[in-house]
Amino acid sequence: MHVMIIGAAGMVGHKLTERLLADGQLGGAPLRALTLVDWVAPTAPAGFDGAVETIAADIATPGLAERLTEARADVIFVLAAIVSGEAEADFDKGYATNLDSTRALFDAIRLVPGYTPRVVFTSSIAVFGVPLPDKISDTHHLTPLTSYGTQKAIAELLLSDYSRRGFLDGIAIRLPTIVVRPGKANLAASSFFSGIIREPLNGQRAVLPVDESVRHWFASPRAAVGFLIHAATLDLTRMGDNRALSMPGLSATVAEQIAALGRIAGPEAVALIDKVPDPVVAKIVLGWPCDFDTARADALGFKAETSFDQIIQAYIEDDLS
Amino acid sequence: MHVMIIGAAGMVGHKLTERLLADGQLGGAPLRALTLVDWVAPTAPAGFDGAVETIAADIATPGLAERLTEARADVIFVLAAIVSGEAEADFDKGYATNLDSTRALFDAIRLVPGYTPRVVFTSSIAVFGVPLPDKISDTHHLTPLTSYGTQKAIAELLLSDYSRRGFLDGIAIRLPTIVVRPGKANLAASSFFSGIIREPLNGQRAVLPVDESVRHWFASPRAAVGFLIHAATLDLTRMGDNRALSMPGLSATVAEQIAALGRIAGPEAVALIDKVPDPVVAKIVLGWPCDFDTARADALGFKAETSFDQIIQAYIEDDLS
Repeated sequence: MHVMIIGAAGMVGHKLTERLLADGQLGGAPLRALTLVDWVAPTAPAGFDGAVETIAADIATPGLAERLTEARADVIFVLAAIVSGEAEADFDKGYATNLDSTRALFDAIRLVPGYTPRVVFTSSIAVFGVPLPDKISDTHHLTPLTSYGTQKAIAELLLSDYSRRGFLDGIAIRLPTIVVRPGKANLAASSFFSGIIREPLNGQRAVLPVDESVRHWFASPRAAVGFLIHAATLDLTRMGDNRALSMPGLSATVAEQIAALGRIAGPEAVALIDKVPDPVVAKIVLGWPCDFDTARADALGFKAETSFDQIIQAYIEDDLS
Repeated sequence: MHVMIIGAAGMVGHKLTERLLADGQLGGAPLRALTLVDWVAPTAPAGFDGAVETIAADIATPGLAERLTEARADVIFVLAAIVSGEAEADFDKGYATNLDSTRALFDAIRLVPGYTPRVVFTSSIAVFGVPLPDKISDTHHLTPLTSYGTQKAIAELLLSDYSRRGFLDGIAIRLPTIVVRPGKANLAASSFFSGIIREPLNGQRAVLPVDESVRHWFASPRAAVGFLIHAATLDLTRMGDNRALSMPGLSATVAEQIAALGRIAGPEAVALIDKVPDPVVAKIVLGWPCDFDTARADALGFKAETSFDQIIQAYIEDDLS
């Protein structure tokens, strides 16, 4: 089993690499080779006696897709993307990175005779936009309100069409917001959802910019890696021709997040959260999906946390050291 | 008012040109110039004293999009496409014509400072695929089962994103199956829906390859032109950020088609229909959408026929000579 991870240096890519090494196999086949791709060179994993290649390249580089197919990886995880804010600020860069490089990869695969790898593409709940129902069903239309969401939605359509035609064997999974992210806060509007848990658990103050009634859609990094592994090994004929679907997650309010923090780390942790309302962040967050009916993913065996306590516990076990 | 029609030599393009000339205006502004584009040179209309340019070119020609924007048309109708069967048979040609040339046009417009024309793009109910509800709502997801439908769905997403960002002022309209098509039968699987009306009205025998219980979604060529005109002149801020929608139409069974033919042309016309079941055609047709709830288009003022008698009457008045 040869696995390629495009976007291996990111948080989820790194955790996926660790999980594959710990498992030593994927879908029952021994892990023999890893190709790790990112714009900064991913760290070659220690303690793996299979073949490892690390490739440092901008995925929008012309010709890179053809080079990547030369590895003939059995499974290709496509995690790399320009984030939402950057794709909005730089129109050309966003389309080149999130759409054109994805299509170039699919086309490079298509043009290798007899090569039909499993392609696991990470999409996003940003393919959905207001107006939204209380719970987003598996048949709700995609109405992205950002260029990033548009690029993800288009990649989903391409993936389904290329799969239907037998050029590759693809699945696109729409990840919930991933919390608790390890490391430092970033500039994303969603950063506080991790910060209000992570900072108090590390004895630091955290800022809450929205009302506690705000509801959102969550899964842990551990659950995200589980989705990717399951997507890589699932029999995709069970999906029919629509190869994109929303992953399960936990719909929780900020108040429920804080209550879980209190149960696990006590009132002194909760007391480290400073309520500093930010109308700009509050407005952005209100436009996001906050609950899903994921019957299709559930039936296919995808699993996420069912309480915020579990999400915090995953962070404590996997990242708090 | 300068109007460009890309795909002007086709049946709908030709009728749209005629309607614009008859009206002499669009949205209250006098029609001063027409640019007609198709892969065969469209016929320059007689009796129009404005400026007319006809351009014969394959829309996939590199550089054509930039040339087309030089006209600075106020309204651009995009009707040109490779049809479903051809896009399925020739993967590269389908994507080049139906997707890349559309995106090239949108990008050429984007790169002209201060130029934000109304772009009316004809999409298709082929963006939908089974499994389908009895009535397809305005929020049902797009699950195309052909490369053609995929290309149309992607063009819709691009149109909405480019409109949201202010690069153009676009609307994508999903046309029902257009009947009664004038002229000869073609190779499309849907051809018989027109044939069983048109041939008898012209005193010729027609073949019905499916059961009379088959239901489908129809509008006349006259209604299609009406959709295009309305789309060109509507205030699109009323649509919000989702600039694609299904047009109204008539859901009717083949039995209802035949009953209408009988009411208008008598039993001797109905007697000209030969039932010759074709399991291949029957299977294709069963995968198609057959009824819609078009509340959004209705609220925006789009209008279609409400009986098959009206559809036949439109053919008799406009095409039977």
